[in-house]
Amino acid sequence: MSEEDALRFLAGRFKATQKEVLTGIGDDSAVLELRDKTCLVASTDTLVEGVHFRLETQTPSQLGKKAVCVALSDIGAMGAVPRYLLCSLGCRSAGSMEFIEDLSQGVEDGCREFEVCLVGGNLSESQTVFISMTALGEVSRDNVVLRSGAAEGDDIYVTGTLGDSALGLRILSGGLGVGGCEGFVSRHIEPTPRLEVGRMVAERGVASSMIDVSDGLFRDLEKLTSEHGLGAEVSLADLPLSPGFLSLSGRLSEDAYRLAVSGGEDYELLFTSSAGNRAVVEDVSRLCGVAVSKIGSVTGGGRVKFFDEGGGEIFYDTGGFEHFC
Amino acid sequence: MSEEDALRFLAGRFKATQKEVLTGIGDDSAVLELRDKTCLVASTDTLVEGVHFRLETQTPSQLGKKAVCVALSDIGAMGAVPRYLLCSLGCRSAGSMEFIEDLSQGVEDGCREFEVCLVGGNLSESQTVFISMTALGEVSRDNVVLRSGAAEGDDIYVTGTLGDSALGLRILSGGLGVGGCEGFVSRHIEPTPRLEVGRMVAERGVASSMIDVSDGLFRDLEKLTSEHGLGAEVSLADLPLSPGFLSLSGRLSEDAYRLAVSGGEDYELLFTSSAGNRAVVEDVSRLCGVAVSKIGSVTGGGRVKFFDEGGGEIFYDTGGFEHFC
Repeated sequence: MSEEDALRFLAGRFKATQKEVLTGIGDDSAVLELRDKTCLVASTDTLVEGVHFRLETQTPSQLGKKAVCVALSDIGAMGAVPRYLLCSLGCRSAGSMEFIEDLSQGVEDGCREFEVCLVGGNLSESQTVFISMTALGEVSRDNVVLRSGAAEGDDIYVTGTLGDSALGLRILSGGLGVGGCEGFVSRHIEPTPRLEVGRMVAERGVASSMIDVSDGLFRDLEKLTSEHGLGAEVSLADLPLSPGFLSLSGRLSEDAYRLAVSGGEDYELLFTSSAGNRAVVEDVSRLCGVAVSKIGSVTGGGRVKFFDEGGGEIFYDTGGFEHFC
Repeated sequence: MSEEDALRFLAGRFKATQKEVLTGIGDDSAVLELRDKTCLVASTDTLVEGVHFRLETQTPSQLGKKAVCVALSDIGAMGAVPRYLLCSLGCRSAGSMEFIEDLSQGVEDGCREFEVCLVGGNLSESQTVFISMTALGEVSRDNVVLRSGAAEGDDIYVTGTLGDSALGLRILSGGLGVGGCEGFVSRHIEPTPRLEVGRMVAERGVASSMIDVSDGLFRDLEKLTSEHGLGAEVSLADLPLSPGFLSLSGRLSEDAYRLAVSGGEDYELLFTSSAGNRAVVEDVSRLCGVAVSKIGSVTGGGRVKFFDEGGGEIFYDTGGFEHFC
């Protein structure tokens, strides 16, 4: 495969059809016509072989789709609507055309599912496989939700369930059979960016701060609270856990709550909202068909604290996302 | 170094001061307020260790600056003004804080020199060092210059000089002393994106097509001509060469014209323009203080052809940019 052949393949595959993409893949840069009075949001994220994935446990197609989802999750966490992606791929030259085709399938699936357009790309030879995605999205200036903005007394919400991805990674890494555990493994391999919830809480102005949970609830909640002179109290009993999560964690001798609190790569949305917004948050949850759970409150200062059902504080280290290596 | 420490360092270093950067590094995504009635241009490019650079011959600072320049060159080739950068860096954990600081210095120098703002970043551990830059810029819809658009009879122009970077790479790769050759080596290590020329030919509407010369004159001219059913005739005697280029190439037993035609990484602008625009092109050259040389003409079809002074056709393979490995 020459780089030219691969680029030609990609240009054909990702031919932009939207009229606002004046030029997509194939020129020096993509040319995009944005609507007036909107802000552009831009984010970049990279998955690296041996650190974020292993090719033994993940197909190139799954990897491509995950790279899309992870990049879009950051856009969703601003309350923005993702529009465009640019992808830089590094891969070994041996057998790479098949690899690129398979990976492209996953990228294409992700683009179709989330209605975004790949408008730029770059291919390089690299001994370490990596896929770097830059996502661009739009949001009206009034709706953008930052990591700062939480206030003392705000409720703390999280979408979906926590810990599944970390448990799925343990199953994959342990070389265990995945029979009966497919749901957890797929949460790790194919995370879902919570774009609709993010957009809707932003449009309705109910999120005072928001982040996507990539480094684990503990560390990401610190970014919303203690990094801004606030604290947080979270009740472990209120953490949303999948059916079977506790029992499977126990069977694998894993501390279930540690996985849920600091396992990372959940790609759920974590946001704060004043208590007066509870009915609106419930509406958003219902309209999106996504569970949104109140897990605690923002405090005036101090650490992020976790309490068990008896009211005793449980201490976790801030390990957060654990790399493969 | 933890990733958090490094990100904190980078967030401090690249604190955005422009009022249109509502949020820069430090949130899930950057939030950028663009002016109305402009197009966004977006491009991504990656430099990979062992393929595009070797750390033995290039400091991290030089690498950071080069990554900026290479990314901006693609924006300039659309006639656009670069505004923002997002950077994904992969590096080995050992000794990486010093590496990141040094590389950041180069990125910062590039950002200051070309008046762009780093608004997003990502750090990953990687056994292979890579630096992936996404550049965003602006151009009015009427001014954007694509790779398509050349017409039969158009003049072909190139800025600056050709082959210097390829010769500089030969000097570096050959382990030769660089005494007296610093100019050629620095053209390889620290290329200059021709942003002002690109913007000005776009604003004045004189470029029918444009590209930056990264893969070598031959291949990049094919992208403007033969890929659109056109051809080109170029006179080797008209190629702009630096003083000393011919003699030094000879001393190194290199075919000087082959380097100039297919060496690559020149990052000069190559554009086509109708003959009626010659006075305007000369004006642009004078105003920018950058040589702009007419090297040939677009033909109605066929290949890209090179002719020597006697009028004989010289055949080059389409080798283009040669990787280190």
